[in-house]
Amino acid sequence: MPLSAEQIAEFREFAEQLADAASAAITPYFRASLEVEDKGGRLYDPVTVADKAAEDAMRERIQARYPDHGILGEEAGVAVGSSPLTWVLDPIDGTRAFITGLPLWGTLIALNDGTRPVVGVMNQPFTGERFIGTPEGAWSGTRALKTRACKELAAATLMCTTPDMFDTPARKAAFEHVASQARLMRYGGDCYAYCMLASGFVDVIVEASLQPYDVQALMPIIEGAGGVITAWDGSSAQQGGCVVACGDPALHAQVVELLRGAM
Amino acid sequence: MPLSAEQIAEFREFAEQLADAASAAITPYFRASLEVEDKGGRLYDPVTVADKAAEDAMRERIQARYPDHGILGEEAGVAVGSSPLTWVLDPIDGTRAFITGLPLWGTLIALNDGTRPVVGVMNQPFTGERFIGTPEGAWSGTRALKTRACKELAAATLMCTTPDMFDTPARKAAFEHVASQARLMRYGGDCYAYCMLASGFVDVIVEASLQPYDVQALMPIIEGAGGVITAWDGSSAQQGGCVVACGDPALHAQVVELLRGAM
Repeated sequence: MPLSAEQIAEFREFAEQLADAASAAITPYFRASLEVEDKGGRLYDPVTVADKAAEDAMRERIQARYPDHGILGEEAGVAVGSSPLTWVLDPIDGTRAFITGLPLWGTLIALNDGTRPVVGVMNQPFTGERFIGTPEGAWSGTRALKTRACKELAAATLMCTTPDMFDTPARKAAFEHVASQARLMRYGGDCYAYCMLASGFVDVIVEASLQPYDVQALMPIIEGAGGVITAWDGSSAQQGGCVVACGDPALHAQVVELLRGAM
Repeated sequence: MPLSAEQIAEFREFAEQLADAASAAITPYFRASLEVEDKGGRLYDPVTVADKAAEDAMRERIQARYPDHGILGEEAGVAVGSSPLTWVLDPIDGTRAFITGLPLWGTLIALNDGTRPVVGVMNQPFTGERFIGTPEGAWSGTRALKTRACKELAAATLMCTTPDMFDTPARKAAFEHVASQARLMRYGGDCYAYCMLASGFVDVIVEASLQPYDVQALMPIIEGAGGVITAWDGSSAQQGGCVVACGDPALHAQVVELLRGAM
Protein backbone atom coordinates (compact mmCIF):
# COMPACT_ATOMS: atom_id res chain seq x y z
CA MET A 1 0.00 0.00 0.00
CA PRO A 2 1.50 3.34 -0.96
CA LEU A 3 2.31 5.77 1.84
CA SER A 4 -0.19 8.58 2.46
CA ALA A 5 0.74 12.21 1.89
CA GLU A 6 0.70 12.61 5.67
CA GLN A 7 3.15 9.76 6.14
CA ILE A 8 5.42 11.13 3.41
CA ALA A 9 5.42 14.53 5.14
CA GLU A 10 6.32 12.91 8.47
CA PHE A 11 9.18 10.88 6.96
CA ARG A 12 10.46 13.88 5.04
CA GLU A 13 10.64 15.89 8.24
CA PHE A 14 12.42 13.01 9.97
CA ALA A 15 14.87 12.65 7.06
CA GLU A 16 15.74 16.32 7.52
CA GLN A 17 16.43 15.66 11.21
CA LEU A 18 18.79 12.88 10.13
CA ALA A 19 20.51 15.31 7.76
CA ASP A 20 20.99 17.77 10.62
CA ALA A 21 22.47 15.04 12.82
CA ALA A 22 24.83 13.89 10.07
CA SER A 23 25.90 17.46 9.37
CA ALA A 24 26.80 18.02 13.04
CA ALA A 25 28.86 14.83 13.03
CA ILE A 26 30.68 15.52 9.76
CA THR A 27 31.34 19.26 9.72
CA PRO A 28 34.19 19.26 12.29
CA TYR A 29 36.12 16.86 10.01
CA PHE A 30 35.71 18.67 6.67
CA ARG A 31 39.02 20.34 5.80
CA ALA A 32 40.46 19.04 9.05
CA SER A 33 44.02 17.80 9.44
CA LEU A 34 45.02 14.60 7.75
CA GLU A 35 44.99 12.14 10.63
CA VAL A 36 42.51 11.61 13.42
CA GLU A 37 43.16 9.45 16.47
CA ASP A 38 40.32 7.29 17.75
CA LYS A 39 39.76 6.18 21.35
CA GLY A 40 41.92 3.12 20.78
CA GLY A 41 44.86 5.27 19.69
CA ARG A 42 44.67 4.24 16.03
CA LEU A 43 45.05 6.80 13.26
CA TYR A 44 42.30 7.28 10.68
CA ASP A 45 41.73 9.72 7.92
CA PRO A 46 39.05 12.27 8.83
CA VAL A 47 36.61 11.05 6.18
CA THR A 48 36.48 7.58 7.72
CA VAL A 49 35.87 8.95 11.19
CA ALA A 50 33.24 11.41 9.94
CA ASP A 51 31.52 8.73 7.84
CA LYS A 52 31.17 6.36 10.81
CA ALA A 53 30.13 9.07 13.27
CA ALA A 54 27.44 10.37 10.93
CA GLU A 55 26.03 6.93 10.14
CA ASP A 56 25.98 6.02 13.85
CA ALA A 57 24.12 9.25 14.63
CA MET A 58 21.51 8.54 11.95
CA ARG A 59 21.09 4.86 12.88
CA GLU A 60 20.53 5.71 16.56
CA ARG A 61 17.77 8.16 15.66
CA ILE A 62 16.07 5.72 13.29
CA GLN A 63 16.19 2.87 15.80
CA ALA A 64 14.78 5.10 18.54
CA ARG A 65 11.94 6.55 16.47
CA TYR A 66 11.10 3.69 14.06
CA PRO A 67 12.47 0.47 15.59
CA ASP A 68 10.58 -1.67 13.05
CA HIS A 69 12.17 0.04 10.01
CA GLY A 70 15.09 -1.51 8.15
CA ILE A 71 18.42 0.29 7.58
CA LEU A 72 20.94 -0.04 4.77
CA GLY A 73 24.04 2.05 5.40
CA GLU A 74 27.37 2.37 3.63
CA GLU A 75 29.41 1.82 6.77
CA ALA A 76 27.48 -0.58 9.00
CA GLY A 77 25.53 -2.54 6.39
CA VAL A 78 22.00 -3.94 6.69
CA ALA A 79 19.69 -4.01 9.70
CA VAL A 80 16.57 -5.90 8.64
CA GLY A 81 13.29 -4.47 9.93
CA SER A 82 9.84 -6.00 10.36
CA SER A 83 8.38 -3.15 8.27
CA PRO A 84 8.86 -3.00 4.48
CA LEU A 85 10.21 0.54 5.00
CA THR A 86 14.02 0.85 4.83
CA TRP A 87 16.28 3.87 5.34
CA VAL A 88 19.14 3.91 2.86
CA LEU A 89 22.10 6.01 4.06
CA ASP A 90 25.38 7.27 2.64
CA PRO A 91 26.85 9.67 5.22
CA ILE A 92 29.48 11.08 2.83
CA ASP A 93 28.87 10.47 -0.86
CA GLY A 94 31.88 11.83 -2.74
CA THR A 95 34.78 10.73 -0.56
CA ARG A 96 37.38 12.12 -2.96
CA ALA A 97 35.62 15.49 -3.08
CA PHE A 98 35.57 15.50 0.74
CA ILE A 99 39.26 14.76 1.17
CA THR A 100 40.33 17.25 -1.50
CA GLY A 101 38.27 19.99 0.18
CA LEU A 102 35.69 20.39 -2.62
CA PRO A 103 32.14 21.16 -1.43
CA LEU A 104 30.53 18.66 -3.82
CA TRP A 105 30.11 15.73 -1.39
CA GLY A 106 26.81 15.22 0.35
CA THR A 107 24.92 13.18 2.91
CA LEU A 108 22.39 10.96 1.13
CA ILE A 109 19.25 9.79 2.93
CA ALA A 110 16.47 7.79 1.27
CA LEU A 111 13.36 6.07 2.53
CA ASN A 112 12.49 3.03 0.42
CA ASP A 113 8.88 1.80 0.76
CA GLY A 114 9.79 -1.77 -0.23
CA THR A 115 9.29 -1.10 -3.93
CA ARG A 116 11.21 2.16 -4.55
CA PRO A 117 12.72 5.19 -2.79
CA VAL A 118 9.92 7.66 -1.99
CA VAL A 119 11.77 10.30 0.05
CA GLY A 120 15.28 11.53 -0.80
CA VAL A 121 17.55 14.12 0.80
CA MET A 122 20.98 15.35 -0.30
CA ASN A 123 22.59 17.65 2.26
CA GLN A 124 25.74 19.74 1.66
CA PRO A 125 26.65 21.49 4.92
CA PHE A 126 29.53 23.67 3.63
CA THR A 127 27.43 25.48 1.03
CA GLY A 128 24.33 25.19 3.22
CA GLU A 129 22.34 23.50 0.48
CA ARG A 130 19.71 20.80 0.98
CA PHE A 131 17.90 19.09 -1.90
CA ILE A 132 14.71 17.14 -1.14
CA GLY A 133 12.48 14.94 -3.28
CA THR A 134 9.13 13.21 -2.61
CA PRO A 135 6.25 12.01 -4.80
CA GLU A 136 4.94 15.60 -4.47
CA GLY A 137 7.96 17.28 -6.07
CA ALA A 138 11.51 18.40 -5.36
CA TRP A 139 12.91 21.43 -3.57
CA SER A 140 16.03 23.23 -2.47
CA GLY A 141 14.98 25.40 0.44
CA THR A 142 11.73 27.02 -0.67
CA ARG A 143 12.62 26.81 -4.37
CA ALA A 144 10.85 24.08 -6.37
CA LEU A 145 13.31 22.20 -8.59
CA LYS A 146 12.58 21.70 -12.27
CA THR A 147 14.76 20.01 -14.85
CA ARG A 148 15.20 21.79 -18.17
CA ALA A 149 14.07 20.68 -21.62
CA CYS A 150 16.83 19.24 -23.82
CA LYS A 151 15.65 16.64 -26.29
CA GLU A 152 18.87 16.01 -28.18
CA LEU A 153 22.22 14.69 -26.99
CA ALA A 154 23.94 17.06 -29.44
CA ALA A 155 22.63 19.96 -27.32
CA ALA A 156 23.23 18.33 -23.96
CA THR A 157 25.61 19.02 -21.08
CA LEU A 158 26.91 15.67 -19.77
CA MET A 159 28.43 14.96 -16.38
CA CYS A 160 30.25 12.00 -14.88
CA THR A 161 32.33 11.83 -11.69
CA THR A 162 35.30 10.15 -13.38
CA PRO A 163 35.96 8.22 -16.60
CA ASP A 164 37.68 5.62 -14.38
CA MET A 165 34.35 4.42 -12.93
CA PHE A 166 33.49 2.31 -16.03
CA ASP A 167 34.69 -1.12 -15.04
CA THR A 168 34.42 -3.06 -18.31
CA PRO A 169 35.70 -2.13 -21.78
CA ALA A 170 32.11 -2.27 -23.11
CA ARG A 171 30.89 0.15 -20.45
CA LYS A 172 33.80 2.54 -21.04
CA ALA A 173 33.18 2.44 -24.80
CA ALA A 174 29.45 3.09 -24.34
CA PHE A 175 30.17 6.07 -22.09
CA GLU A 176 32.72 7.45 -24.56
CA HIS A 177 30.24 7.06 -27.39
CA VAL A 178 27.66 9.11 -25.48
CA ALA A 179 30.31 11.67 -24.42
CA SER A 180 31.50 12.11 -28.01
CA GLN A 181 27.98 13.13 -29.06
CA ALA A 182 27.25 15.51 -26.18
CA ARG A 183 27.72 19.24 -26.60
CA LEU A 184 29.72 19.64 -23.40
CA MET A 185 31.36 17.24 -20.93
CA ARG A 186 32.24 17.95 -17.31
CA TYR A 187 33.90 15.55 -14.85
CA GLY A 188 33.79 15.59 -11.06
CA GLY A 189 30.32 16.00 -9.64
CA ASP A 190 29.35 13.16 -7.30
CA CYS A 191 25.86 13.57 -5.80
CA TYR A 192 26.04 17.33 -6.36
CA ALA A 193 25.83 16.80 -10.13
CA TYR A 194 22.49 14.98 -9.79
CA CYS A 195 21.13 17.93 -7.80
CA MET A 196 22.30 20.33 -10.52
CA LEU A 197 20.49 18.12 -13.05
CA ALA A 198 17.34 18.39 -10.92
CA SER A 199 17.92 22.16 -10.83
CA GLY A 200 18.07 22.47 -14.63
CA PHE A 201 21.80 23.10 -15.18
CA VAL A 202 22.89 19.63 -16.36
CA ASP A 203 21.09 17.51 -18.96
CA VAL A 204 22.49 14.00 -18.59
CA ILE A 205 24.61 12.01 -16.13
CA VAL A 206 26.09 8.63 -17.09
CA GLU A 207 27.82 6.63 -14.36
CA ALA A 208 28.67 3.08 -13.33
CA SER A 209 29.85 1.10 -10.32
CA LEU A 210 27.33 2.80 -8.04
CA GLN A 211 25.96 1.27 -4.83
CA PRO A 212 22.26 1.36 -3.89
CA TYR A 213 23.04 3.98 -1.21
CA ASP A 214 24.81 6.15 -3.85
CA VAL A 215 21.65 6.54 -5.89
CA GLN A 216 18.42 5.94 -3.93
CA ALA A 217 18.27 9.38 -2.27
CA LEU A 218 18.80 11.05 -5.64
CA MET A 219 15.92 9.25 -7.37
CA PRO A 220 13.03 11.14 -5.69
CA ILE A 221 14.90 14.42 -6.19
CA ILE A 222 15.35 13.89 -9.93
CA GLU A 223 11.91 12.36 -10.45
CA GLY A 224 10.27 15.08 -8.35
CA ALA A 225 11.92 17.69 -10.58
CA GLY A 226 10.57 16.10 -13.76
CA GLY A 227 13.63 14.06 -14.76
CA VAL A 228 14.17 10.36 -15.31
CA ILE A 229 16.78 8.18 -13.61
CA THR A 230 17.17 4.47 -14.39
CA ALA A 231 19.71 1.74 -14.94
CA TRP A 232 21.32 1.76 -18.42
CA ASP A 233 18.66 -0.68 -19.69
CA GLY A 234 15.78 1.46 -18.47
CA SER A 235 14.98 -0.68 -15.40
CA SER A 236 14.93 0.73 -11.86
CA ALA A 237 18.15 2.45 -10.76
CA GLN A 238 17.64 1.50 -7.12
CA GLN A 239 20.18 -1.32 -7.08
CA GLY A 240 22.92 1.03 -8.34
CA GLY A 241 25.42 -0.30 -10.87
CA CYS A 242 25.14 1.43 -14.26
CA VAL A 243 22.93 4.52 -13.90
CA VAL A 244 21.72 7.17 -16.35
CA ALA A 245 19.83 10.33 -15.36
CA CYS A 246 18.31 12.90 -17.73
CA GLY A 247 16.38 16.08 -17.19
CA ASP A 248 14.29 15.54 -20.30
CA PRO A 249 12.47 12.19 -20.72
CA ALA A 250 12.98 12.35 -24.51
CA LEU A 251 16.75 12.62 -24.04
CA HIS A 252 16.65 9.72 -21.59
CA ALA A 253 14.98 7.51 -24.21
CA GLN A 254 17.70 8.47 -26.72
CA VAL A 255 20.61 7.84 -24.32
CA VAL A 256 19.25 4.52 -23.02
CA GLU A 257 19.33 3.22 -26.60
CA LEU A 258 23.07 4.03 -26.73
CA LEU A 259 23.85 2.44 -23.35
CA ARG A 260 21.49 -0.53 -23.14
CA GLY A 261 23.74 -3.08 -24.85
CA ALA A 262 26.74 -2.37 -22.61
CA MET A 263 25.09 -2.83 -19.23
CA MET B 1 62.96 47.34 -8.94
CA PRO B 2 60.77 45.13 -6.76
CA LEU B 3 57.63 46.63 -5.30
CA SER B 4 57.77 47.75 -1.67
CA ALA B 5 55.69 46.06 1.03
CA GLU B 6 53.59 49.23 1.12
CA GLN B 7 52.93 49.06 -2.63
CA ILE B 8 52.06 45.36 -2.40
CA ALA B 9 49.58 46.13 0.39
CA GLU B 10 47.98 48.87 -1.70
CA PHE B 11 47.67 46.67 -4.78
CA ARG B 12 46.32 43.77 -2.72
CA GLU B 13 43.59 46.01 -1.33
CA PHE B 14 42.79 47.25 -4.83
CA ALA B 15 42.70 43.68 -6.18
CA GLU B 16 40.12 42.88 -3.52
CA GLN B 17 38.04 45.85 -4.70
CA LEU B 18 38.22 44.40 -8.21
CA ALA B 19 37.06 41.05 -6.83
CA ASP B 20 34.08 42.75 -5.17
CA ALA B 21 33.17 44.50 -8.43
CA ALA B 22 33.43 41.28 -10.43
CA SER B 23 31.34 39.43 -7.86
CA ALA B 24 28.55 42.02 -8.10
CA ALA B 25 28.58 41.71 -11.90
CA ILE B 26 28.63 37.91 -12.01
CA THR B 27 26.42 36.78 -9.14
CA PRO B 28 23.06 37.63 -10.80
CA TYR B 29 23.97 35.27 -13.66
CA PHE B 30 25.13 32.23 -11.67
CA ARG B 31 22.41 29.57 -11.86
CA ALA B 32 20.32 31.94 -13.95
CA SER B 33 18.15 30.82 -16.84
CA LEU B 34 19.80 29.57 -20.00
CA GLU B 35 19.54 32.56 -22.28
CA VAL B 36 20.05 36.25 -21.68
CA GLU B 37 19.00 38.96 -24.11
CA ASP B 38 21.37 41.87 -24.63
CA LYS B 39 20.37 45.43 -25.56
CA GLY B 40 20.53 44.55 -29.25
CA GLY B 41 18.03 41.73 -28.77
CA ARG B 42 20.56 38.95 -29.30
CA LEU B 43 20.59 35.85 -27.08
CA TYR B 44 23.67 34.93 -25.07
CA ASP B 45 24.37 32.33 -22.47
CA PRO B 46 24.64 33.86 -18.99
CA VAL B 47 28.32 33.00 -18.60
CA THR B 48 29.27 35.11 -21.63
CA VAL B 49 27.26 38.08 -20.38
CA ALA B 50 28.64 37.74 -16.85
CA ASP B 51 32.21 37.33 -18.11
CA LYS B 52 32.06 40.53 -20.18
CA ALA B 53 30.27 42.54 -17.50
CA ALA B 54 32.79 41.53 -14.83
CA GLU B 55 35.81 42.25 -17.01
CA ASP B 56 34.40 45.65 -18.03
CA ALA B 57 33.80 46.50 -14.37
CA MET B 58 37.38 45.59 -13.44
CA ARG B 59 38.93 47.37 -16.45
CA GLU B 60 37.04 50.60 -15.70
CA ARG B 61 38.33 50.61 -12.13
CA ILE B 62 41.92 49.90 -13.18
CA GLN B 63 41.88 52.60 -15.86
CA ALA B 64 40.43 55.14 -13.43
CA ARG B 65 42.86 54.41 -10.59
CA TYR B 66 46.04 53.35 -12.44
CA PRO B 67 45.77 54.70 -15.99
CA ASP B 68 49.44 53.86 -16.69
CA HIS B 69 49.05 50.14 -15.83
CA GLY B 70 48.64 47.51 -18.50
CA ILE B 71 45.71 45.06 -18.61
CA LEU B 72 45.52 41.53 -19.99
CA GLY B 73 41.98 40.16 -19.82
CA GLU B 74 40.35 37.00 -21.12
CA GLU B 75 37.53 38.85 -22.87
CA ALA B 76 38.90 42.19 -24.10
CA GLY B 77 42.56 41.29 -24.60
CA VAL B 78 45.60 43.50 -24.02
CA ALA B 79 45.73 47.18 -23.12
CA VAL B 80 49.41 48.16 -23.07
CA GLY B 81 50.42 50.52 -20.25
CA SER B 82 53.39 52.83 -19.83
CA SER B 83 54.17 51.12 -16.50
CA PRO B 84 55.69 47.62 -16.34
CA LEU B 85 52.80 46.69 -14.03
CA THR B 86 50.02 44.66 -15.69
CA TRP B 87 46.72 43.40 -14.30
CA VAL B 88 45.91 39.92 -15.56
CA LEU B 89 42.19 39.10 -15.36
CA ASP B 90 39.97 36.07 -15.83
CA PRO B 91 36.48 37.07 -14.73
CA ILE B 92 35.15 33.48 -14.70
CA ASP B 93 37.77 30.76 -14.64
CA GLY B 94 35.94 27.45 -14.88
CA THR B 95 33.26 28.18 -17.47
CA ARG B 96 31.98 24.58 -17.44
CA ALA B 97 31.70 24.61 -13.64
CA PHE B 98 29.78 27.89 -13.88
CA ILE B 99 27.25 26.68 -16.44
CA THR B 100 26.69 23.36 -14.66
CA GLY B 101 26.00 25.19 -11.38
CA LEU B 102 29.10 23.93 -9.52
CA PRO B 103 30.67 26.47 -7.12
CA LEU B 104 34.23 25.71 -8.27
CA TRP B 105 34.66 28.59 -10.74
CA GLY B 106 36.38 31.76 -9.62
CA THR B 107 37.38 35.28 -10.58
CA LEU B 108 41.16 35.40 -11.05
CA ILE B 109 43.03 38.68 -10.59
CA ALA B 110 46.81 38.99 -10.75
CA LEU B 111 49.22 41.90 -10.72
CA ASN B 112 52.36 41.16 -12.73
CA ASP B 113 55.35 43.42 -11.97
CA GLY B 114 56.87 42.90 -15.41
CA THR B 115 58.81 39.83 -14.33
CA ARG B 116 56.23 37.72 -12.47
CA PRO B 117 52.83 37.86 -10.76
CA VAL B 118 53.24 39.34 -7.28
CA VAL B 119 49.63 39.65 -6.11
CA GLY B 120 46.97 37.01 -6.80
CA VAL B 121 43.29 36.75 -5.86
CA MET B 122 40.83 33.93 -6.46
CA ASN B 123 37.27 34.88 -5.50
CA GLN B 124 34.33 32.43 -5.27
CA PRO B 125 31.19 34.41 -4.49
CA PHE B 126 28.76 31.50 -4.00
CA THR B 127 30.75 29.88 -1.18
CA GLY B 128 31.98 33.27 -0.01
CA GLU B 129 35.62 32.23 -0.23
CA ARG B 130 38.51 34.46 -1.25
CA PHE B 131 42.09 33.23 -1.58
CA ILE B 132 44.91 35.79 -1.67
CA GLY B 133 48.64 35.49 -2.27
CA THR B 134 51.50 38.00 -2.09
CA PRO B 135 55.28 37.74 -1.48
CA GLU B 136 54.34 37.90 2.23
CA GLY B 137 52.19 34.75 2.26
CA ALA B 138 48.76 33.43 1.34
CA TRP B 139 45.41 33.66 3.10
CA SER B 140 41.77 32.75 2.96
CA GLY B 141 40.02 35.28 5.14
CA THR B 142 42.14 35.51 8.28
CA ARG B 143 43.51 31.97 7.93
CA ALA B 144 47.08 31.68 6.62
CA LEU B 145 47.34 29.01 3.92
CA LYS B 146 50.00 26.33 4.13
CA THR B 147 50.56 23.45 1.75
CA ARG B 148 51.11 20.02 3.30
CA ALA B 149 54.19 17.83 3.17
CA CYS B 150 54.02 14.97 0.67
CA LYS B 151 57.37 13.96 -0.75
CA GLU B 152 56.32 10.94 -2.82
CA LEU B 153 53.94 10.65 -5.75
CA ALA B 154 52.85 7.25 -4.42
CA ALA B 155 51.33 9.05 -1.41
CA ALA B 156 49.93 12.01 -3.37
CA THR B 157 46.44 13.20 -4.21
CA LEU B 158 46.42 14.41 -7.83
CA MET B 159 43.91 16.74 -9.46
CA CYS B 160 43.24 17.78 -13.04
CA THR B 161 40.20 19.56 -14.48
CA THR B 162 39.72 17.07 -17.32
CA PRO B 163 41.82 14.42 -19.08
CA ASP B 164 40.67 16.06 -22.34
CA MET B 165 42.89 19.12 -21.77
CA PHE B 166 46.08 17.32 -22.91
CA ASP B 167 46.33 18.32 -26.55
CA THR B 168 49.11 16.05 -27.83
CA PRO B 169 49.55 12.28 -27.43
CA ALA B 170 52.86 12.87 -25.62
CA ARG B 171 51.23 15.22 -23.11
CA LYS B 172 48.33 12.83 -22.51
CA ALA B 173 50.75 9.94 -22.02
CA ALA B 174 52.87 11.96 -19.58
CA PHE B 175 49.80 12.90 -17.56
CA GLU B 176 48.59 9.30 -17.50
CA HIS B 177 52.01 8.13 -16.36
CA VAL B 178 51.90 10.55 -13.42
CA ALA B 179 48.26 9.66 -12.67
CA SER B 180 49.04 5.94 -12.65
CA GLN B 181 51.63 6.50 -9.90
CA ALA B 182 49.54 8.81 -7.68
CA ARG B 183 47.66 7.44 -4.69
CA LEU B 184 44.39 9.12 -5.62
CA MET B 185 43.08 10.98 -8.70
CA ARG B 186 40.25 13.51 -8.80
CA TYR B 187 38.95 15.34 -11.87
CA GLY B 188 37.07 18.62 -12.06
CA GLY B 189 38.62 21.38 -10.02
CA ASP B 190 39.47 24.44 -12.12
CA CYS B 191 41.00 27.28 -10.10
CA TYR B 192 39.38 25.93 -6.93
CA ALA B 193 41.71 22.92 -7.01
CA TYR B 194 44.79 25.17 -6.88
CA CYS B 195 43.36 26.89 -3.80
CA MET B 196 42.78 23.50 -2.16
CA LEU B 197 46.42 22.66 -2.92
CA ALA B 198 47.45 25.92 -1.25
CA SER B 199 45.21 24.94 1.69
CA GLY B 200 46.91 21.56 2.15
CA PHE B 201 44.21 19.18 0.82
CA VAL B 202 45.67 18.38 -2.62
CA ASP B 203 49.30 17.46 -3.33
CA VAL B 204 49.76 17.85 -7.06
CA ILE B 205 47.91 19.37 -10.05
CA VAL B 206 48.94 18.56 -13.63
CA GLU B 207 47.24 20.51 -16.42
CA ALA B 208 47.79 21.73 -19.96
CA SER B 209 46.31 24.16 -22.49
CA LEU B 210 46.15 26.96 -19.90
CA GLN B 211 46.21 30.66 -20.75
CA PRO B 212 48.35 33.20 -18.85
CA TYR B 213 45.18 34.57 -17.20
CA ASP B 214 44.24 31.04 -16.06
CA VAL B 215 47.37 30.69 -13.96
CA GLN B 216 48.96 34.02 -12.97
CA ALA B 217 46.60 34.77 -10.05
CA LEU B 218 47.15 31.30 -8.65
CA MET B 219 50.97 31.55 -8.60
CA PRO B 220 51.29 33.97 -5.63
CA ILE B 221 48.63 31.96 -3.74
CA ILE B 222 50.49 28.67 -4.14
CA GLU B 223 53.95 30.16 -3.66
CA GLY B 224 52.76 32.17 -0.64
CA ALA B 225 51.50 28.93 0.91
CA GLY B 226 54.84 27.18 0.46
CA GLY B 227 54.11 25.32 -2.77
CA VAL B 228 55.76 25.36 -6.18
CA ILE B 229 54.04 26.05 -9.52
CA THR B 230 55.92 25.97 -12.83
CA ALA B 231 55.67 24.87 -16.43
CA TRP B 232 56.30 21.14 -16.98
CA ASP B 233 60.01 21.84 -17.63
CA GLY B 234 60.44 23.79 -14.40
CA SER B 235 60.43 27.23 -16.05
CA SER B 236 57.97 29.98 -15.06
CA ALA B 237 54.29 29.05 -15.32
CA GLN B 238 53.24 32.60 -16.13
CA GLN B 239 52.75 32.01 -19.86
CA GLY B 240 50.31 29.15 -19.17
CA GLY B 241 50.44 26.07 -21.40
CA CYS B 242 51.57 22.95 -19.52
CA VAL B 243 51.51 23.65 -15.77
CA VAL B 244 52.37 21.57 -12.70
CA ALA B 245 51.75 22.65 -9.09
CA CYS B 246 52.84 20.81 -5.96
CA GLY B 247 52.43 21.51 -2.28
CA ASP B 248 55.79 19.95 -1.44
CA PRO B 249 58.91 21.15 -3.36
CA ALA B 250 60.40 17.65 -3.20
CA LEU B 251 57.33 16.21 -4.92
CA HIS B 252 57.51 18.97 -7.54
CA ALA B 253 61.09 17.98 -8.39
CA GLN B 254 59.97 14.36 -8.78
CA VAL B 255 56.96 15.16 -10.98
CA VAL B 256 58.82 17.61 -13.22
CA GLU B 257 61.23 14.79 -14.13
CA LEU B 258 58.23 12.74 -15.33
CA LEU B 259 56.69 15.60 -17.34
CA ARG B 260 59.67 17.53 -18.68
CA GLY B 261 60.14 15.54 -21.89
CA ALA B 262 56.50 15.87 -22.97
CA MET B 263 56.16 19.66 -22.77
